[in-house]
Amino acid sequence: MSQIKFPATRRGGRASLVASRAEEKTPRLSTIRYGIKPVEALSPDQLERVHQASLAILREIGIDFRDETALRQWREAGADVQGQRVHLEPEMVMGLIAKAPRSFELRSRDIDRRVTISPDTLTFGTMQGAPNVRDINGVRRSSTMEDLKDVNRLTQMLPGFQVAGGFTCEPTDIAVPWRHLHINRSSLVETNLPYFGLTTGQERSEDSIAMARIAHGAEFMKSNAVIIGQISGNSPLVWDATMLEGLRVYAEANQVVLLSPFVLGAANTPADVAATAAQVNAEALAGLAYTQLTAPGAKMIYGQYSVSVSMRSGAPMSGMPEVTLLNVVIGQLARRYGIPWRTTASQSSSKTFDAQSGYESAIAYMSGATATSNLLLHAGGWDEAGMVCCFAKFVADAEQNLLIAKYAQGISFAYFDEALEAVRRVGPGGHYLGDSFTLKHFKDAFIAPELLDYLSYEQWKAKGSRDMAQRCREKAKAIIEGYEPPPMDAAVREELDAFVAKRQQEISPSLA
Amino acid sequence: MSQIKFPATRRGGRASLVASRAEEKTPRLSTIRYGIKPVEALSPDQLERVHQASLAILREIGIDFRDETALRQWREAGADVQGQRVHLEPEMVMGLIAKAPRSFELRSRDIDRRVTISPDTLTFGTMQGAPNVRDINGVRRSSTMEDLKDVNRLTQMLPGFQVAGGFTCEPTDIAVPWRHLHINRSSLVETNLPYFGLTTGQERSEDSIAMARIAHGAEFMKSNAVIIGQISGNSPLVWDATMLEGLRVYAEANQVVLLSPFVLGAANTPADVAATAAQVNAEALAGLAYTQLTAPGAKMIYGQYSVSVSMRSGAPMSGMPEVTLLNVVIGQLARRYGIPWRTTASQSSSKTFDAQSGYESAIAYMSGATATSNLLLHAGGWDEAGMVCCFAKFVADAEQNLLIAKYAQGISFAYFDEALEAVRRVGPGGHYLGDSFTLKHFKDAFIAPELLDYLSYEQWKAKGSRDMAQRCREKAKAIIEGYEPPPMDAAVREELDAFVAKRQQEISPSLA
Repeated sequence: MSQIKFPATRRGGRASLVASRAEEKTPRLSTIRYGIKPVEALSPDQLERVHQASLAILREIGIDFRDETALRQWREAGADVQGQRVHLEPEMVMGLIAKAPRSFELRSRDIDRRVTISPDTLTFGTMQGAPNVRDINGVRRSSTMEDLKDVNRLTQMLPGFQVAGGFTCEPTDIAVPWRHLHINRSSLVETNLPYFGLTTGQERSEDSIAMARIAHGAEFMKSNAVIIGQISGNSPLVWDATMLEGLRVYAEANQVVLLSPFVLGAANTPADVAATAAQVNAEALAGLAYTQLTAPGAKMIYGQYSVSVSMRSGAPMSGMPEVTLLNVVIGQLARRYGIPWRTTASQSSSKTFDAQSGYESAIAYMSGATATSNLLLHAGGWDEAGMVCCFAKFVADAEQNLLIAKYAQGISFAYFDEALEAVRRVGPGGHYLGDSFTLKHFKDAFIAPELLDYLSYEQWKAKGSRDMAQRCREKAKAIIEGYEPPPMDAAVREELDAFVAKRQQEISPSLA
Repeated sequence: MSQIKFPATRRGGRASLVASRAEEKTPRLSTIRYGIKPVEALSPDQLERVHQASLAILREIGIDFRDETALRQWREAGADVQGQRVHLEPEMVMGLIAKAPRSFELRSRDIDRRVTISPDTLTFGTMQGAPNVRDINGVRRSSTMEDLKDVNRLTQMLPGFQVAGGFTCEPTDIAVPWRHLHINRSSLVETNLPYFGLTTGQERSEDSIAMARIAHGAEFMKSNAVIIGQISGNSPLVWDATMLEGLRVYAEANQVVLLSPFVLGAANTPADVAATAAQVNAEALAGLAYTQLTAPGAKMIYGQYSVSVSMRSGAPMSGMPEVTLLNVVIGQLARRYGIPWRTTASQSSSKTFDAQSGYESAIAYMSGATATSNLLLHAGGWDEAGMVCCFAKFVADAEQNLLIAKYAQGISFAYFDEALEAVRRVGPGGHYLGDSFTLKHFKDAFIAPELLDYLSYEQWKAKGSRDMAQRCREKAKAIIEGYEPPPMDAAVREELDAFVAKRQQEISPSLA
């Protein structure tokens, strides 16, 4: 299809449209409210069947809490505890779940950057946990502290992210015992978004909360959530001590707990989508119920990370149809419980930022959005099954977030009647480019991406035949060069640095 | 994430799984029944509002039929006709629409390749109309007859296609007046799938039907549809003579008519998604009603081709959120009318088979599937806004079709209870890889793509660091080399060739 020829003589025509477009600056996504009704894969009866199967798993099979504190708490609450195995009655589970808030705010140092997490909203966060980067020159290598800072700089500048991933890539040049301090510091210094803290054990969780308090004030955090702690499950049917320690620290500090069972379909769940949903839901329900047991009213997100496993090679496969369907089911379940839920967008297994990376990522995006997930995590940079944070993909995904957000918001009827008047005015065989309604509304009616290329082949060739990876690397470079740090009081920054120095000494002075 | 380590000592474990996988051959997609409930963007009230707006457009503004026969037919039916402008009363429109069959079969020479088109099913067809190919070596050039034959060979061999595009790419080395004859011949000789004929005017449509009759038998075609005629609208609110001639030829031969208004958002429709839907729906309703007027009971598909237009450059932008939302609305409308509907999958504007190509294509796939479209057209090869048929993308898309088909079918509860027994058997902390349920069901439970790469970075590098484009070119080459033509009686083939020779002479002997 050829490009539309805009009439050259029309007043206020193409030239003025282009000019006003260029002046615009894309605003950061604030709270996105869903305006679509989600895909459903289960009838009400089937949904009830999965829910009941989850409750039966918790009652009859039970679930392991490999943590003495949790076992004591369950025992005191009246659960049937045998060794590490906890058997839970449905009433107890559902009674605890009912204490969870349906909706809450994530705050940051910038009031304009707050977002509401609820079953009706959508939020985007960057990827997490990559040990490598595909850097700004496209070179794959171990990630460093400077890479993490750059990734946080991108997160801060790109309008498509509402939550910083925290440990987006690993600063492998910093000793592991000190690493969490520097990760938290970068989240707080390079960005002013809500962010993910570290959760691996008591100490690192406490350090994460302590550093957040330095930046945000302990008093403010008593009633406001600024940091999320991600608590991964150990499927099938185990919650480990390390994670439960983290859970308690975050929940008791009135910060957000994200509970994520970790599904490797057919490896740690049955080779059946519906039964996988039942098992994962049992795990999630037990974790969610425990969170409310330890801190009634705690802000929680129902999580889930799912891939299927290749029976050819044992490799995890993201974006497969079974995972897409599992998202649909988890969404139906989470809405039944009235708890916001998270899934994963933009996963790919590709070793280079190529067509596979695009296909897989976009399937995952649409999988989450059409199931009306409330937090799309890993929606920035994820490639090579999570082993790489790709800088080019990071900015590509940030743009996809804007597109997905627009889709999720659905259709406005605010100008419907006015637009129908344009249909009457233009009439059969006419055209809309010069019509007053078009000139008034084109900016908001149709989104115009920047990194997706719409040039003709000849124009594209004349401009250097740059593929998406190259365009995105150039964009990432330009953003990092133009980075503006968010304001932070010098005293706060000094206190953060002093905390890091002090804790490094306490943890392991010999690493200096 | 690392690869799962399969236990090495397990009996009947990984080795046997891998072996039985390799022996398998992916079966061609037959009729795919949706097992998901679609995304909705309109409340019942809003849906009614759009529907009523469409009817008001047809009654008050009217629509142009630039064709004397059609104008006469409308006049005779009692419509208000002024010049070429036809004003239609809602009762007349809806009365005619009600004559359309809700469901019908597409047949071919192979009984196993029939598919049902209905509001409950999903069908995949290849792209159409590319003047260029990105060939098997990745070179972009004008397409030839040999390219079209190769594309048809791929269509025939790849299990992901149920309908051949017919004019998938243009045989530019054949003179335009003869071209339709050779396109039809290739559809019939190189494939035995249902396919698209040519519709540009009376003669080419009649030739298309005549050639289908040679291959299928005139008697068979009286009661069976084997060929689809695509009738494009001319938005806003015009149906042209060339297309209406084609429409009548196909409808009167009891073949399928696909009516596709052609949306360039903000160029030939208002800069408003809901009003665009109202206009497009008015156009479609008029075309559908006319089809039933000219041939009551005719098999029809409600079509729609939509892109938004960049206000920066005037270029068409595929896969944008507004188009995705328009799909949702058209789906809701078509279901209201009980007529199967078509949209476009796998569109991209990219000039190379890169990440952009993947993102845009997959968004379009999920857009169509989550709106439960009944015919996903252009689901093979489309790139560069339709200016290119990319061989690599053709095979990549064919695989995506298999994945989307699995998603569309939703979730089976056939083995739910059995799988829950596995949860009990494995228990907390166990693993499923060696469990009897896994061994019995892994093949069907989780799909395993071939062209998406799940190797580790080191394995991938050792195997030559091939990106998706390269892997797909190699695959396309292998398929074309191993191509097996479908059976065809020598006499039928001779008759087809004689028909082509005769018609060439009649049309323009001087081109020889």
